[in-house]
Order: sequence, then structure tokens, then C-alpha cells
Amino acid sequence: MVSADFQSWAAARQSRIEATLQNLLPAPGIAPQRLHAAMRYAVLGGGKRVRPLLAFASGELSGADSERVTLAGAAVELIHAYSLVHDDLPCMDDDVLRRGKPTCHVEYGEATALLVGDALQSLAFQVLGEYRLASDPNDQLHMVKLLASASGSRGMAGGQAIDLDSIGRRLSVPELELMHIHKTGALIRASALLGARCGDELGQTELDALDTFAKLIGLAYQVVDDVLDADAPTATLGKTAGKDADRNKPTYVSALGLAESKSFAQQLREDALKALDPFEDRALRLRQIADFIVLREF
Amino acid sequence: MVSADFQSWAAARQSRIEATLQNLLPAPGIAPQRLHAAMRYAVLGGGKRVRPLLAFASGELSGADSERVTLAGAAVELIHAYSLVHDDLPCMDDDVLRRGKPTCHVEYGEATALLVGDALQSLAFQVLGEYRLASDPNDQLHMVKLLASASGSRGMAGGQAIDLDSIGRRLSVPELELMHIHKTGALIRASALLGARCGDELGQTELDALDTFAKLIGLAYQVVDDVLDADAPTATLGKTAGKDADRNKPTYVSALGLAESKSFAQQLREDALKALDPFEDRALRLRQIADFIVLREF
Repeated sequence: MVSADFQSWAAARQSRIEATLQNLLPAPGIAPQRLHAAMRYAVLGGGKRVRPLLAFASGELSGADSERVTLAGAAVELIHAYSLVHDDLPCMDDDVLRRGKPTCHVEYGEATALLVGDALQSLAFQVLGEYRLASDPNDQLHMVKLLASASGSRGMAGGQAIDLDSIGRRLSVPELELMHIHKTGALIRASALLGARCGDELGQTELDALDTFAKLIGLAYQVVDDVLDADAPTATLGKTAGKDADRNKPTYVSALGLAESKSFAQQLREDALKALDPFEDRALRLRQIADFIVLREF
Repeated sequence: MVSADFQSWAAARQSRIEATLQNLLPAPGIAPQRLHAAMRYAVLGGGKRVRPLLAFASGELSGADSERVTLAGAAVELIHAYSLVHDDLPCMDDDVLRRGKPTCHVEYGEATALLVGDALQSLAFQVLGEYRLASDPNDQLHMVKLLASASGSRGMAGGQAIDLDSIGRRLSVPELELMHIHKTGALIRASALLGARCGDELGQTELDALDTFAKLIGLAYQVVDDVLDADAPTATLGKTAGKDADRNKPTYVSALGLAESKSFAQQLREDALKALDPFEDRALRLRQIADFIVLREF
């Protein structure tokens, strides 16, 4: 169960992120208009903004200015949005429905969707270069590096590549874990670390604890995704359900079964919460996000 | 005619860039291996490295450390290489030949080529975040912003979008110019500015003169490209000749004719050289690059 207190905390921050993304994305009247309209279509008005929420919760731990965290969270969300647009393309998952709407390439064509993803990635780094996000500019350069490596071939894009190579193969649980640590985990970890690094109050040990939490919760997120894909109707998901099994993609459900996948997600949640012990009661929001992720629909 | 002196200057720098790209790109043995092999295939062993050369020549004007310029030039080249991989995809130009080799998607498949482009873009920004490239980290953050905006929806990706929208239409020369200022010009300007900003010795007026030079030479580059596409055999180009006309793409040749396109390129070269007047004889390499670009094959 997600508490009312968390819901109102999250809703306030989701609105801020939405407003900031609105402002960061070029207006649809600015040329090239069609590209900008498509970028806005892909980013705005949807999504739970889990990654920015994680940045906010981490930023609160480190005493970060909330303007800065909003921008850092928006940068991560732009990367996430680009990855969804490219993942949905016909040469990848070939999906037609995302967040209850036609996917970007269905609405705007494949070529435009390709450019949308490319330009959203550029925009994310433009945000990190353009605004003051950390007191020390060297820390901010470190944030650029963090987000870039989380997005690249040894992070998210690498996870996609492992995913591609795995279609039709049966993966062991450690292999699945390796794939997901890259594919979704890297960006979730970056969200927590970028949020935290907008402030100054965490030392390396605390950043490491936060990273461990984010790594575990990122994996839990994926296990829950697999469970929902196998278990929930399309209407609830806002995307096509059962796609993974249809495409013969290895999932936790195919590797462990449904019941064991659910209990694995719970185990990951417990381990993630344990990683927060050093923060004592300062980590309330992070604990709530863990619940928000793991308990979302089962 | 390109002088022997310039050829040896350029060859030394092309080797440095090649070696640096070799080191920056993850080794093919690092997982995910297939993605890393494809990234290396797309980047290494080809190309004239015009953008890095421009960064070097600009860096020499500003007293920049050559290690730093090499890294900045490599970052620009990674962006350029990603854009070629994505441009060649079936949903874009659908080209099968690049630098005399099968294009990335022909060799590795569409899905991998998509990820190659995505990951090369991330890697470019990782380089700008990871290494010390400017004495003042705030200047380096400005470089991140510069490269990101040159790559994004109001730069290179935007130019591609204008290009897409123009297929089958007859563009006026100003419309063509707008397209190319985005599509190739933005990244060429970024190359010059990034190179210069690795050093400290240029003031804003000089940076502006350099920017004007780069803008004009970027446009000249495109005009020459159109001329070569219409005029040269495939074997000389290393990519499929005559594609633009076949796809009913507007080009300078279709708008102005071949002879007038050639003289327009010469005019742009002269204007570009004039922009270098304030540098007097310190701008030798930039002048040689202008010739290298405009006189390359006609």
C-alpha cells in the first residue's frame, strides 16, 4: 500500500518535473516543428516519473536545492524517454502502444521517431551542461560522466544489446540479472546518484549505500515488470501485455515461475531497505519509493 | 591543391585521433561484445576526420594543449559517426555503403546499428565529462552544452528532420541553407569552438570570427558534397553516388545547377577565408582546411 503522505509528496514532484520538461523541450512552434511536436509527444503527459522521484528522494538526503534536483531528474527522464522511443521501433520491440497511446513511430513515422530519440538524448546532456546543478562545477562534470556511462554501451544501451542477443535463448537467473542491471538498473542508479550529487551532504560511504539501494530496487523494478507483463491485462499496463512471452524473451517469470518471481521481488525490496539502514529515519522517501516500485500492482 | 606541409600536419593528427578513438571505444572483448565490435566498426579506420582537424587547427590558435584537443575532437567525431550510422538506416537514407564498406546495419543488423548510434552519442558526452579538457571546469560544462545543442533538435538532428520533410519538395536556396546549417554546419561549428575552448587565448571577438569561418566552411562542405554526389563515381566517394537525385532530395545541384554550385562553393570558401583576416598568419591551418574541404575533389 502506498501511503497518502507519499502520494501527495510524489504528486507535487511529478507536477514540477512535468512543468520543467515542458519548459526544457522546445515549443512545438519552433522549427523543426514536427520533430519538436514528436519530442513533446514522447515525453510529456505520461509515465510515473519514477527516476525523477528517486532523484528527489536522494536529493533530500543530501541537502540538495530542489531546482537543481528537478533539472537533474528531468535530464534522466529525457534519457529514459528516448530509450522508450527507440525500444518501441519496429527493428527493436516493434510495439504500438505505450502509456496508453500509440507509440511515437506509429504516430510520427519511424524516421522521425529515430530522430526524436537522438535529440532527446542530446537534450539531456544539454541540460547537464547548461544549468548550474552542483556547487562545484567539477562535481557537475562528474554528473555528466555518470549519466553518459549509465546510458551507454556499458549501461542502458548495453543492456538492450544483451537483451537482443538473448531472444530465443534460455538465460540463467545470473544472466538475466546482468542484463537488467544494465538495461534498467544503470539509469535507476544514475537517478539516485545524480539527485544526491546536487547536494553536498553525503560522503562516499553514504553514496555507496544509496547506490546499493538503487541497484537492488532497479532489479526489483524489472522483476515486477516481468511479473506484470505475464500477469496483468493490457489496459492496466498501458502497454501491450504478454509481449515478452510472445517474443520468446527470457524473463524472470520464464526462469523462476510467477510465484517465485513475486517472492524474489519481495526479497530484493527487503535487501534494498536494509541498505538504507545507515540513514535511519532520514530515508523515509526512499523507503516509500521502494514500496511504490515493488508493491505497485500486486 | 593540398600542400605537402598540410598533408603531413593532417596525417599526424589523424593518427592521433585514430589512436584516441581506439582507446575510448570499449575493446571488442568487453561485454556486450557484439555491440562493442559494431561500435568500433562504425568509427574506426575510415573517414577524413575533418571535424577533429578543425578542432586541432582552432586549438592551435587558442594555445590549447593537444591532448585535450584530441579528446574534444574525438568526442565530436563520435557524434559524427553516430549520425552516419543512424542516417544510413533503412528508415532514413537506406544506404548500404559507407567509406567503401557495408554500412553498420548491413553488417550487424538494424537493431544493433540503432544501439551503436545511441551508445556512440553517450560515449561522446562521457568523454566530455570524464577528462579534463579546459582549465576552468565551467568552460568545460559550456563545451558539454555546445556539443549537445549542436547535436540536438536545433542542430544536427533538427537538420535531419528538415531534410526528411523536404524529400520530394523543391527547396529555395535559403531553405537549403537553413537545412544544411543545421544538418552538417552545427557540428562543424562545434568542432572549431570546442577545439578553441580547450585553450584560453581567444577572446569572444576571435571566437566569433572562428564561428563565422566554421559556419561558412560547413556550408561549403555541403555544397561540395552535393556536387560530388552528382558528379563523382561511387568508387571515388566510398558511398553510393547519385543517391540524392534518386531519392528526389533537394540539393544545391538541383537548385542551382552543377556549374553554379561549384562557383557557390568557391564563393563560400573566399568568404570563410575573409573571416580569418583578424588572425593574420596564425590561421594557416584553418586556411588549409578550407582548401582541403572545398578543393577536395574538383
